[in-house]
Amino acid sequence: MSKFLSKKYENLEPYTPGEQPKDMAYIKLNTNESPFSPTKKAMSAVKKQALLSKLYPDPEQTVLTKKVADYLGVKKEQVLMTNGSDEILNFAFMAYCDSSNPAVFADITYGFYSVFAFINGVPTKVIPLKDDFSIDKTDYYNARGTIFIANPNAPTGLTLTLADIEDILKNNLNNIVVIDEAYVDFGATSAIKLIDKYDNLLITRTFSKSRSMAGARLGFGVANEKIIKDLNAIKYSTNPYNVNRMSAILGAYSIDDERYYEKCIQKVIFARNYAKEELDKLGFELTDSKANFLFAKHPKISGETLYEKLKEKGVLVRHFNKERTKDYVRITVGTQKEMTVLIQKIKEIIQN
Amino acid sequence: MSKFLSKKYENLEPYTPGEQPKDMAYIKLNTNESPFSPTKKAMSAVKKQALLSKLYPDPEQTVLTKKVADYLGVKKEQVLMTNGSDEILNFAFMAYCDSSNPAVFADITYGFYSVFAFINGVPTKVIPLKDDFSIDKTDYYNARGTIFIANPNAPTGLTLTLADIEDILKNNLNNIVVIDEAYVDFGATSAIKLIDKYDNLLITRTFSKSRSMAGARLGFGVANEKIIKDLNAIKYSTNPYNVNRMSAILGAYSIDDERYYEKCIQKVIFARNYAKEELDKLGFELTDSKANFLFAKHPKISGETLYEKLKEKGVLVRHFNKERTKDYVRITVGTQKEMTVLIQKIKEIIQN
Repeated sequence: MSKFLSKKYENLEPYTPGEQPKDMAYIKLNTNESPFSPTKKAMSAVKKQALLSKLYPDPEQTVLTKKVADYLGVKKEQVLMTNGSDEILNFAFMAYCDSSNPAVFADITYGFYSVFAFINGVPTKVIPLKDDFSIDKTDYYNARGTIFIANPNAPTGLTLTLADIEDILKNNLNNIVVIDEAYVDFGATSAIKLIDKYDNLLITRTFSKSRSMAGARLGFGVANEKIIKDLNAIKYSTNPYNVNRMSAILGAYSIDDERYYEKCIQKVIFARNYAKEELDKLGFELTDSKANFLFAKHPKISGETLYEKLKEKGVLVRHFNKERTKDYVRITVGTQKEMTVLIQKIKEIIQN
Repeated sequence: MSKFLSKKYENLEPYTPGEQPKDMAYIKLNTNESPFSPTKKAMSAVKKQALLSKLYPDPEQTVLTKKVADYLGVKKEQVLMTNGSDEILNFAFMAYCDSSNPAVFADITYGFYSVFAFINGVPTKVIPLKDDFSIDKTDYYNARGTIFIANPNAPTGLTLTLADIEDILKNNLNNIVVIDEAYVDFGATSAIKLIDKYDNLLITRTFSKSRSMAGARLGFGVANEKIIKDLNAIKYSTNPYNVNRMSAILGAYSIDDERYYEKCIQKVIFARNYAKEELDKLGFELTDSKANFLFAKHPKISGETLYEKLKEKGVLVRHFNKERTKDYVRITVGTQKEMTVLIQKIKEIIQN
């Protein structure tokens, strides 16, 4: 750090993305990416937008926003497109948290929430998950802060029902509840249908996972019009042209080619169920993940050792070295073939 | 605004991007875009990256950063790539301004500086330009705050010499000086060669203008390694994957195809000189712009009227309705043909 850096960031601990080693080709099951390409139908349109990129993108992203809104069955004034869902999450921390509105989230959840809080100078209220990693919804009643809940949660993959979410909303009418639906397409129930009923609900979504666009950076928020207006004010005060032309058109085509993505999602769910069953047979303890990853521990091998031995064998998974999660690894669900290799490698490891 | 929005943003006035009307096809000379496409040589690589975008981009942008660093003759640890230069500017406001380090900038300059200051809760010290819109460098000596200077300045296009910039750096050894070089390629002298000599210098750049990539969103910062480390900490605390795969590869190819961009820049300079001469003949008063835009006023027609009449005739320019600039219009330099049409339309307007 330089001597010029503002004192407020003296103790800043940035987020650590999953490793991207370049020493060899790994089966990459560590950052919850999709194993399938984005729709090939988009390619000539992407090229066209690349050539057109001498011109700024539409700062309102009118066409894409309308398409996403229609797809979700909401109004275009209820949607804001962003540079990945990290951007809309950061906007939410900026807009709805401050010294008198702490950020409220679980002890085990998306690791970025605590970083967003710190960078925005926001106090936090961390609520432990239950022993089985599930959320006790009543812990969030009258939270007196802005709530961030990932549904499904990461890295556990556990979900809340729509009724649970509605109960949390009802019991927080004076503060915003952010439901981070990054992984919702793999088996949880979206809360989008509640946005007209609850003006305190903000849903964040990403094209990175189920739409195979992690490398394109596209996310969005869905909420009532006033919330979206707030978040637009933040956007126009930090980066009005936040979404580039090529990612926008790729996103639009992904909506048009819904059937392709439905098939990809079904394949991931199938591979998830297969891997879950096999790991179970091998003695693993698993959460009931409805996301595109599994969260698993084995009674005889530590999370760290399993991570390391899998890496030696060319398979990358993610290990979080925190008290309550250190026994586990988080394994992204890849193709059926990748899951077969994974199970084979794990067998070699635990049977030695 | 919703009732939930943090009180700190009650008086937030977001930046207003140049208009993008959809009612008809305009000759678009209002947002300082390049009239030339990005290099066609990049297109198949862009397509490849679009297909690869199921995977996150390299958060370090190793390849692109190295390429940009080599091109500039600096170390890769002295460069940080961002989602447009607005992002690196915002990072600088976050990192180097706070309640005891105000943001210091001119009364007439890039309109976003005051917005960045507000959104980050930072006080400002606004220094009026001289009557001829030039900067008095001594006004910035011992500024006791973080200085933001656009070189060339916008919307005037006026430049500082390298010696002027060095004098400002020397007289501010305890605070950061940001030189915003968005338009530098069109005729100003870059301060990049000073980064090893002055640890208080941060330069921001964009691919939007001279590299025809406004729609792709790519910018960067250049500074000594400690400054870049600070800014990386901010990046990894807001949006680690800030640059997408397609824009990154387009940027890399633009560096490779340097000769093409050199030619485009020469064409812009030629068209600028032509338009300047013609406007001069028509009685306009012009600044000596070294950017890809002209800043011009006519003794007999107000800036607003000229803007409106040009719009009626299908030519968009930009008018800033502020006390010291309201007599002027800012005209982006397009192709020679566009400049010829512009001059023709202006003749029709002022000779009626």
